[in-house]
Amino acid sequence: MCEASAYVIDGENQELIMEAVDSVEPEDGGYKLINIFGEQKFVKGTIHSLSLVDHKVYLKKS
Amino acid sequence: MCEASAYVIDGENQELIMEAVDSVEPEDGGYKLINIFGEQKFVKGTIHSLSLVDHKVYLKKS
Repeated sequence: MCEASAYVIDGENQELIMEAVDSVEPEDGGYKLINIFGEQKFVKGTIHSLSLVDHKVYLKKS
Repeated sequence: MCEASAYVIDGENQELIMEAVDSVEPEDGGYKLINIFGEQKFVKGTIHSLSLVDHKVYLKKS
């Protein structure tokens, strides 16, 4: 399985906000994250970068 | 390995632009894609959505 961990970048820091993320979909000026357990989380902001081999998705709040 | 295929969404169509993508980094109003072979490609636009279990990254041209 190739789910990833999602982090929100805040200056120098990265906060882990969700593990085992499957899908990231645009919604209302942000993104809705859904993990493989069906849990959902909304982040108002943008997708900053991806590091897929490391299983990491970085978002940035707007 | 959890690299993904990158597609550019153009209306109803999706064009495969790169396979085996590892990292996607912001650069100059767009994103630089790098795959596991070290090949690079630049897309002027945004990351539209992710479907990681399906190994797919969708970008949208600006």
